[in-house]
Amino acid sequence: MLSNTYLVCVTFLLLMVDYSKIFANKIKDIKDEGRYRQFIGFISSPDQLPYKIDCEHKKNVVVWCSNNYLGMGQNEKVIAAVKDSSTNIGAGGTRNISGTTKEVVELEESLADLHQKETALTFACGYLANQTTLSTLLSIIPEVVVFSDEKNHYSMIEGMKVGKSPKYIFKHNDVDDLRSKLDLVGKEVPKIIAFESIYSMDGSIAPIEQICDLAKEYNALTYLDEVHAVGMYGKHGGGIAEEYNLMDRVTVIQGTLSKAFGVMGGYIASSKDLIDVVRSFAPGFIFTTALSPILAAAARASVEHLKFSSTEREKQKEMVKKVKSSFTKAGIKFAPTETHIIPVIIGDPVLCERASKMLFNEYNIYVQHINYPTVPRGTERFRITPTPYHNDSMVEHLTSSLVKVFEELSIPLQLKNLHVEYN
Amino acid sequence: MLSNTYLVCVTFLLLMVDYSKIFANKIKDIKDEGRYRQFIGFISSPDQLPYKIDCEHKKNVVVWCSNNYLGMGQNEKVIAAVKDSSTNIGAGGTRNISGTTKEVVELEESLADLHQKETALTFACGYLANQTTLSTLLSIIPEVVVFSDEKNHYSMIEGMKVGKSPKYIFKHNDVDDLRSKLDLVGKEVPKIIAFESIYSMDGSIAPIEQICDLAKEYNALTYLDEVHAVGMYGKHGGGIAEEYNLMDRVTVIQGTLSKAFGVMGGYIASSKDLIDVVRSFAPGFIFTTALSPILAAAARASVEHLKFSSTEREKQKEMVKKVKSSFTKAGIKFAPTETHIIPVIIGDPVLCERASKMLFNEYNIYVQHINYPTVPRGTERFRITPTPYHNDSMVEHLTSSLVKVFEELSIPLQLKNLHVEYN
Ligand SMILES: Cc1ncc(COP(=O)(O)O)c(C=O)c1O
Ligand SMILES: Cc1ncc(COP(=O)(O)O)c(C=O)c1O
Repeated sequence: MLSNTYLVCVTFLLLMVDYSKIFANKIKDIKDEGRYRQFIGFISSPDQLPYKIDCEHKKNVVVWCSNNYLGMGQNEKVIAAVKDSSTNIGAGGTRNISGTTKEVVELEESLADLHQKETALTFACGYLANQTTLSTLLSIIPEVVVFSDEKNHYSMIEGMKVGKSPKYIFKHNDVDDLRSKLDLVGKEVPKIIAFESIYSMDGSIAPIEQICDLAKEYNALTYLDEVHAVGMYGKHGGGIAEEYNLMDRVTVIQGTLSKAFGVMGGYIASSKDLIDVVRSFAPGFIFTTALSPILAAAARASVEHLKFSSTEREKQKEMVKKVKSSFTKAGIKFAPTETHIIPVIIGDPVLCERASKMLFNEYNIYVQHINYPTVPRGTERFRITPTPYHNDSMVEHLTSSLVKVFEELSIPLQLKNLHVEYN
Repeated sequence: MLSNTYLVCVTFLLLMVDYSKIFANKIKDIKDEGRYRQFIGFISSPDQLPYKIDCEHKKNVVVWCSNNYLGMGQNEKVIAAVKDSSTNIGAGGTRNISGTTKEVVELEESLADLHQKETALTFACGYLANQTTLSTLLSIIPEVVVFSDEKNHYSMIEGMKVGKSPKYIFKHNDVDDLRSKLDLVGKEVPKIIAFESIYSMDGSIAPIEQICDLAKEYNALTYLDEVHAVGMYGKHGGGIAEEYNLMDRVTVIQGTLSKAFGVMGGYIASSKDLIDVVRSFAPGFIFTTALSPILAAAARASVEHLKFSSTEREKQKEMVKKVKSSFTKAGIKFAPTETHIIPVIIGDPVLCERASKMLFNEYNIYVQHINYPTVPRGTERFRITPTPYHNDSMVEHLTSSLVKVFEELSIPLQLKNLHVEYN
């Protein structure tokens, strides 16, 4: 009897699936690798830039890693657009079922104008804009072949994963490699070339014109993620494509409202017919509540402000220059880019985290250590983003603190070269 | 010479890809099918419920199809949470890189409490919450097999599409069919059963308890989309699982902030270890800007309000009852559900659209016609959602207008039976 019960129990246990253990093992793996993430909660308020108060220790730190690049999330016009608004907080429906608000329509007009495109379409976030637009284009263009830069953001990759379209990954920003891959496919075959204008973790800039030339030669559509450039570059904040006067050559410009524009939401701008198709077929657009009208009002105020004000952009560029020159003087190596992104590659997840913690605890500086999967393993880094709100003494303090922390942790100032990531 | 040039031209044209034509053809298809969507833009303001002003004709219509089910998008506490807030508009970063705000942390605590789960996690929208959580669970649980209700929302389906996990689609709310499919897989194999509590287009309610019993018997995790139930059912607005006292039996409860809560954003609530894995591995959580703190503050006010106030729920239930009884008296057939959703199946895209337009133009009533892909072809419908803000005379007006419009368009009052959709 007893052994029977025992057998039943053992069989039962063997048949049980221990989900907790599966999850715990997964977490153990990333802890062992030194890349378990603990989020720091922050209190932010409009008059505090570039400071935030950390929720746990109630301590004021200078933030050097925000994507609120120009401080527009605290801009008084943007705040006023929210506070003075007499619209609802939520849209209350999908775009088709009562959720299309005046605010969203006006925002889309403003974005179409920004990029000098026929029309624009908004999404809950930039991630969804990429994922659902690309997967939709892939599913509706028969036999389409995709060409994707190897460093493209995951939101694009996810959109291109679906379906059976052949995919070619070309070397980062490498026009020759792209051409050699385009050559593998007949000219009469539909193609999409997907790339970013500024690669956010490296600060590298795509050769947009040459890619557009190839696209023309090979009959390809171009899909350009300008997430880290909109609001920041070009006379009106239209991004790198505006800066280089190439907006009309790109088929789809994708952007976010959550970085330089300081709000939340994503969008694409393109021709009427392309957008009509996305609007009509993209699940991540159809089956979700429309963008909150209060966010749309805020975003529009931000976009319109940055169309005509260059003050923020100029001040920010000045601060970027100052940080770069201060780092150079101190011998701190960083990836030499023309953009506002200053990557300091440490190349080890544990050291990177320790340096970040030390800066936080001892120097009241917040620079998040960035690890896999946000950057490739072995290229763990700080990604420093100066804003118009930083000042000279903050720059000095950042530089001297970095030098001291690197010294203490025996991190060589002559850091790993950026090219390690291009493997 | 000339014929040579001609040849070159023709060859060139043959090699060109006419993308516009591809797009135009796609649009033509849906136009021919009578399901091309034109969005109606609306002006909404807090003191107007249940009215909206349509942007084009500047005309006030009574909205009968909003998912702002309880009017919380206009609730004064929710508005105050936005207007009195001294936080930023945008989070300014992903959760890991400076974007975790006090407001989001507090909202997640409030949601965990609502569902009596260890913890909760927010996303840009409910769509992304479903898509990325499910795809992540599928990718990290080895050999997992998925069991999905045939009527599940596209955001879940998309999450379950990825990867090579075997999938079984069980008949809508059919526990016997689910069991027969579970029987096909060994008990020792990890499984996820994914379903919704209220199916939004039909108003049908899942047999949560029996599904949880099966899950226990067969060692499955349960994933429950409560998008259309949170805020609405249960003593504290915890959804159908709270109403039936089953919250602790469901592994993951997924919800939205955009419907009854009146804001925007999505979430899951579950055990610490499961959420830790999603937090650490889900691309749609990692690679996107955190939820706007101002939305988080608004959502928390809404969630907390509905935890302790039943006024909105009761008034709404009363209005739902009134509409149903008014329809019954007038002989208007609707799907007989226990929920707040009143589906009136017309079963033809063109007739449905014509009826909707007539109601709008002649009776100042807005009920969106709902067509494929939101509902299956042949089940085109009105989906009527009374709110606490509708009143008796609006109900009478709705009923009499529907009767007149159906008469004029020769739509039989004894409409198609709901079972047509279960094909
Ligand atoms: C290149 C790129 N594309 C898209 C996104 C997604 O944008 P959002 O944060 O609005 O979802 C991000 C980052 O978040 C990004 O870095
Ligand atoms: C069942 C269901 N799940 C998820 C969603 C997506 O939620 P959200 O609108 O917050 O993206 C919806 C509708 O929008 C839905 O109906």
